[in-house]
Amino acid sequence: MTTLDNVLIARRLGLDTQQEPMVFVRTGCRVCRSEGFESRARVEVRYDGRSIIATLYQVTSELVAESEAGLSESAWRHLGIVQEGTAISFHHPRPLLSLSAVRAKAYGHRLDEAQMRTIIGDVVQGLYSDIHISSFVTACTASGLDFEEMVSLTRAMVDTGDRIRWPAALVVDKHSVGGLPGNRTTPIVVAIVAANGLCMPKTSSRAITSPAGTADTMEVLAPVDLDVAAMRRVVELEGGCIAWGGAVRLSPADDILIRVERALDLDSEGQLVASVLSKKIAAGANCVVLDIPVGPTAKVRDEGAARSLALTLQSVAAQFGVRCHALISDGSQPVGRGIGPALEARDVMRVLEGRADAPADLRERALRLAGALLEIGGVAASGAGNALAVRTLDEGTALKKFLAICAAQGGLRAIPEAPFKQAVVATRTGTVRVVDNRRLALVAKLAGAPDAKAAGVELMVRLGAAVQVGQPLYVVHAETVGELAYASEFANQNPGIIELELVA
Amino acid sequence: MTTLDNVLIARRLGLDTQQEPMVFVRTGCRVCRSEGFESRARVEVRYDGRSIIATLYQVTSELVAESEAGLSESAWRHLGIVQEGTAISFHHPRPLLSLSAVRAKAYGHRLDEAQMRTIIGDVVQGLYSDIHISSFVTACTASGLDFEEMVSLTRAMVDTGDRIRWPAALVVDKHSVGGLPGNRTTPIVVAIVAANGLCMPKTSSRAITSPAGTADTMEVLAPVDLDVAAMRRVVELEGGCIAWGGAVRLSPADDILIRVERALDLDSEGQLVASVLSKKIAAGANCVVLDIPVGPTAKVRDEGAARSLALTLQSVAAQFGVRCHALISDGSQPVGRGIGPALEARDVMRVLEGRADAPADLRERALRLAGALLEIGGVAASGAGNALAVRTLDEGTALKKFLAICAAQGGLRAIPEAPFKQAVVATRTGTVRVVDNRRLALVAKLAGAPDAKAAGVELMVRLGAAVQVGQPLYVVHAETVGELAYASEFANQNPGIIELELVA
Repeated sequence: MTTLDNVLIARRLGLDTQQEPMVFVRTGCRVCRSEGFESRARVEVRYDGRSIIATLYQVTSELVAESEAGLSESAWRHLGIVQEGTAISFHHPRPLLSLSAVRAKAYGHRLDEAQMRTIIGDVVQGLYSDIHISSFVTACTASGLDFEEMVSLTRAMVDTGDRIRWPAALVVDKHSVGGLPGNRTTPIVVAIVAANGLCMPKTSSRAITSPAGTADTMEVLAPVDLDVAAMRRVVELEGGCIAWGGAVRLSPADDILIRVERALDLDSEGQLVASVLSKKIAAGANCVVLDIPVGPTAKVRDEGAARSLALTLQSVAAQFGVRCHALISDGSQPVGRGIGPALEARDVMRVLEGRADAPADLRERALRLAGALLEIGGVAASGAGNALAVRTLDEGTALKKFLAICAAQGGLRAIPEAPFKQAVVATRTGTVRVVDNRRLALVAKLAGAPDAKAAGVELMVRLGAAVQVGQPLYVVHAETVGELAYASEFANQNPGIIELELVA
Repeated sequence: MTTLDNVLIARRLGLDTQQEPMVFVRTGCRVCRSEGFESRARVEVRYDGRSIIATLYQVTSELVAESEAGLSESAWRHLGIVQEGTAISFHHPRPLLSLSAVRAKAYGHRLDEAQMRTIIGDVVQGLYSDIHISSFVTACTASGLDFEEMVSLTRAMVDTGDRIRWPAALVVDKHSVGGLPGNRTTPIVVAIVAANGLCMPKTSSRAITSPAGTADTMEVLAPVDLDVAAMRRVVELEGGCIAWGGAVRLSPADDILIRVERALDLDSEGQLVASVLSKKIAAGANCVVLDIPVGPTAKVRDEGAARSLALTLQSVAAQFGVRCHALISDGSQPVGRGIGPALEARDVMRVLEGRADAPADLRERALRLAGALLEIGGVAASGAGNALAVRTLDEGTALKKFLAICAAQGGLRAIPEAPFKQAVVATRTGTVRVVDNRRLALVAKLAGAPDAKAAGVELMVRLGAAVQVGQPLYVVHAETVGELAYASEFANQNPGIIELELVA
């Protein structure tokens, strides 16, 4: 019921809290008195038929008046309030029944489709606090998800968002399982495949725990915040696109879960499978090539694990009529030279432009994936895919297509250069024996990647290279002095990031 | 390093965020520019040798000036800032290395003592966000804690707080395992035991998932926020006290974890054991009687589970030189008539005053526990404890002692009465067959308990009682109209809370 007692006047605070809706009211205001809300209570706020769950904070100062409720931008937008001075009402949120399913998972029980649906539905509706989301993510990691659970989680994530259908009978896609810094093959693969007439409407995610996701890197070269209409226009025109999945509400639950997984640096198999496939299925793909890098510090540590992950992805995908083809690749060191959005974008352009200083490993990986897609897509005979991919790249057709795609997405952008750099040098002479992908990625993140586009790490050596004492092993790039100091300090405290072996 | 670039002027916002420290700065202020902080970033704030980790929020409005940082009360207090206009510096927090141990637990690995120490140390230092704490709590629930892990978690929680030593060689204590509404024996037990010369410096917790913890209930009758000095004074004077554990920094980690466990309604064995024992050990007890109520809707469902929990508590306690004696009791229905701080306090006073309308079950339970303690404490021969307890209660010695303890703690308080009440009546005629403790507790919580002291549920019937259609089964008490409506709505939607059986 809405009485005068639970109504306050909305005031826009211009407070950026990302997705989390917050409201600020005076301690002892009538809403707190009549509803008994404590500070930090979860409350339901209603306006004009819309309703959100927000965290309420009490203020003793003049920050807000007795009759006012100060709203964060997220709360303001979700309620769709047009002007200040609007009356909004406060209520007790219904008990979150889906939490009993989260508890069940925490206690090791399996969740059926209905339970998975209610959880993901509540998550997408914004009813879960960080505490609830974190518990669900952790419970799924700890208790694990069986086959049916992965299928129902994937389906729930697909069904709670938009879903795109394409006129083309065959819609191809690719995915590289994270954990390998600089593995930025997507823009190259899309260009090659689309140049050969296949339909590849690629949606990519931003970084989960890495210093750059494909969307972060592509954003350096062109706008990626395309809505469905924009994607259709680009794909109709060029046969392919490289867009950010989050902008098109494809599996919105994924983006919410990812924020928490990033804070925990947790990315379990069940979540990985649901995250990858829900995006592909919602994007309308029916044929996907998977790149699974294997290495001691890659996400997948050995070939056995890679095969089982591939099998899981294939069998779950099959439930949605999606064909999966998996390629296992070398994950013993980063791909290309750059780690971080701008530095990886530079590697991509060098490969597309066929420059002499293009990183050979990035080129080879892209060609292998493109070749596989060309064969599966039926434009190249079995075994002839790679040769066709090479031609498409070397004749500049791929570059032409990529530039056309960038133009269609809003125009090619100049790659920014970091204002602050510092080299990490070899403390002894020897040959490079081990490269720790994880700690190297951490250095790039400490330097500001992915939020700071130009920040990251530029690798100066590769496995097996002979280096002299004092020779730079890698260069830290940062947009601010603070981040440069912060990342360099960690880098110098961790000489093992690049291990050198004495030459006999 | 502290440069001018990462310094802002502190402003007190009078914002109550409970423990969570928050800072508000202008979007694009020099600190965000120089350090690259995004909104919602975790930042380290330093002032005069102190430092805290806070969540930074960006503001586009005039809320704070370009050169200012608005601080929540928690941030203001922890930094110990005396006046506004003070300069504070902002830094990147060091990476939380203990999170790798949380991840290990989530992946099912066991944690050694050192890992447990770093996690709890970081938690107590306030370095963990809700996301991190929730993940740790859930991981411990899902993967479970083995014996050594419970011991090391308990030790870590004891060592990160204060620890009280008492002159008395024997320091007794009691604990009732939650899940049974209204089971408020502690004030009575302390009064009886202290009246017989034993030392019982009782610290109790506030509610975790229940409508009232002993501290919440006792607070209705007297102040419970006693510091160590105050506790010593009261115990020296009266031989016993009933204080809130949180106010004396005994196992402060417990209070931090409990807030998250409450939001998740999660309370696993490992956490229960560490929570209970860390408080007792830190409080200086070396002889504890455990009350474990067993019932279909109690926390412990069957006698087997109760015995194994008792055994776990005993063996972990033994590692700290603490003797545990477990009593298993009937948990098939709530104890006494009241559920909620004030209503439970009323039951307690009626038992102590030996009134005719005193709930017999509460009296019996208190006598049994007190009797056991009197025997273990050596003031009653084996088998004679109960009789001595009865005498102490019936002769009014216990009441006299209790009033003296209340006086020593700051003075006896009048029990508040709820302004709003609504009865839930029988929809048919029959005998009471089942009482659902959990949903009954939920009604009391929806009515505002434990934060609203006078709120809760007053039971009008007990198991086996014959009731007529229209006869009140229980009465909902609330301090606000909103909460009364909210709780009553849920109560009426759940007639099964008290199940009636047709009389043949």
